[in-house]
Amino acid sequence: MVKVIRTINELTNITNQLKQANETIGFVPTMGYLHEGHTTLMEECKKYADTLIVSIFVNPLQFGPNEDFERYPRDEKRDQTIAMEHDVDYLFMPSVDEMYPGNDIITLHVTDRVDVLCGKSRPNHFDGVVTVLTKLFHLTRADYVCFGLKDAQQVAVVKGLIDSFNFTLKIIAVPTVREMDGLAKSSRNVYLSDKERHEATYLFKALKEAKQLMIDGEKNPVMIKEKVKKYIKHHTNGEIDYVDILTFPSLDTVETIDQQIIIAVAVQFTKARLIDNIIVDHSGTVPNAII
Amino acid sequence: MVKVIRTINELTNITNQLKQANETIGFVPTMGYLHEGHTTLMEECKKYADTLIVSIFVNPLQFGPNEDFERYPRDEKRDQTIAMEHDVDYLFMPSVDEMYPGNDIITLHVTDRVDVLCGKSRPNHFDGVVTVLTKLFHLTRADYVCFGLKDAQQVAVVKGLIDSFNFTLKIIAVPTVREMDGLAKSSRNVYLSDKERHEATYLFKALKEAKQLMIDGEKNPVMIKEKVKKYIKHHTNGEIDYVDILTFPSLDTVETIDQQIIIAVAVQFTKARLIDNIIVDHSGTVPNAII
Repeated sequence: MVKVIRTINELTNITNQLKQANETIGFVPTMGYLHEGHTTLMEECKKYADTLIVSIFVNPLQFGPNEDFERYPRDEKRDQTIAMEHDVDYLFMPSVDEMYPGNDIITLHVTDRVDVLCGKSRPNHFDGVVTVLTKLFHLTRADYVCFGLKDAQQVAVVKGLIDSFNFTLKIIAVPTVREMDGLAKSSRNVYLSDKERHEATYLFKALKEAKQLMIDGEKNPVMIKEKVKKYIKHHTNGEIDYVDILTFPSLDTVETIDQQIIIAVAVQFTKARLIDNIIVDHSGTVPNAII
Repeated sequence: MVKVIRTINELTNITNQLKQANETIGFVPTMGYLHEGHTTLMEECKKYADTLIVSIFVNPLQFGPNEDFERYPRDEKRDQTIAMEHDVDYLFMPSVDEMYPGNDIITLHVTDRVDVLCGKSRPNHFDGVVTVLTKLFHLTRADYVCFGLKDAQQVAVVKGLIDSFNFTLKIIAVPTVREMDGLAKSSRNVYLSDKERHEATYLFKALKEAKQLMIDGEKNPVMIKEKVKKYIKHHTNGEIDYVDILTFPSLDTVETIDQQIIIAVAVQFTKARLIDNIIVDHSGTVPNAII
């Protein structure tokens, strides 16, 4: 039975008890409107921790002035049902006032890993992300926190947050959940036309082609990026936003591929902008879950 | 027997064990060159926690470009002896490289409580303070952290840090340690001439006068500040840097005294700048230790 918690006081009481009982705590932060991506994280998190806390909080601080904070979809009832079905122990659903009572005297600013990939077009987005996560990591007293690699940049920034401030928790990066044909699951996929839905499968195919090139010995990221772009252009009518190869999780530029890297793509279709990525080391192997 | 720890790895192993054994951890962060102010904090912290960790780390981040980071006094041997004599369990003495390995991707900025009192003349000092404390709070997994009220602004900022990010630890504010004649203990007192040493006692006397005025019903901070200034001018040849009355710990300007406030003074003598303060609520009572 999932217990819904709305106040910090209540959550603190519970986490104090859990810690006194030496329970390990797993945590999945979400903005709600739960889908299979979230439930996969929940299931994964349960493997590591005795108790699972999921938060549902649409964090105003991570939305830009022209973004859709107000219109962001919310469905508390449905989320509670899904949480219950997936063995969540505690569902933390605080109000904005509870999380930001207006007396914060310190701001966080992310200085690296943010001016690339999707972060380039979302200034200060990650400042809001790390601020709410710092609060939530403390409140939940999490030992393990799960994030999906679909948003690999977020994983990289959270890893940086944990390392920068010596948080004692471990981050579990969970592989992207995919449709049978390889398309990364996303709530935006419904905006694709039938033709686009078929074309969209070529994003992951392009990434797999890139991985094969690396396994075959190609170490030049420029060559690989060009081939990925050509492949996507040939197979889709989408407009490529970026194809990039960076170190992971530091997200630095790569001259020669000789370490763990991410190959990431973003493609704009008529009504949906899709992203996908794979993380590989120089021999093409996928890394461990705990980073 | 105090155990000296120099690496984050070693500290993490120890705190993991302590937490698994359900020990409460008290923490006193210092920059070393320990004196009675520090040992009082250690003794106080022992009252709350099973295990006492003291850190000695001269934090470069909290020194301004024209401040004395290089010349700051250091004496590891003597500090270890003092720690041993005061029942410290673990002495964490990391190098600068250990605390700042050069891959931090996030900066902290204090936006309130810093442009008053001594903080006015030390821009970004408290950014450095909260950065190192965030790391140390996580590394030590402290349940209680002790700070001296001699540096009341630091207490106020740390309280703000804890509240802003929902740290689960409790801050214990320890009353200023004083000489028999009331002068606040400070390593800078040795720089006073005999005449100044006598005059310096009037700082605390002035603060007690102010408190008496409040108990007698005076609610106008301007009146009280004027009387404190007159009193100090009359009894000393020091130059007043500031006499201020602010809310505590929020350090806001006060119109009418009807809540917990701090009366703080800073006076420049020939070779020593002395500070002192008292914290009182509107009826003149000193507040509890845990704030």
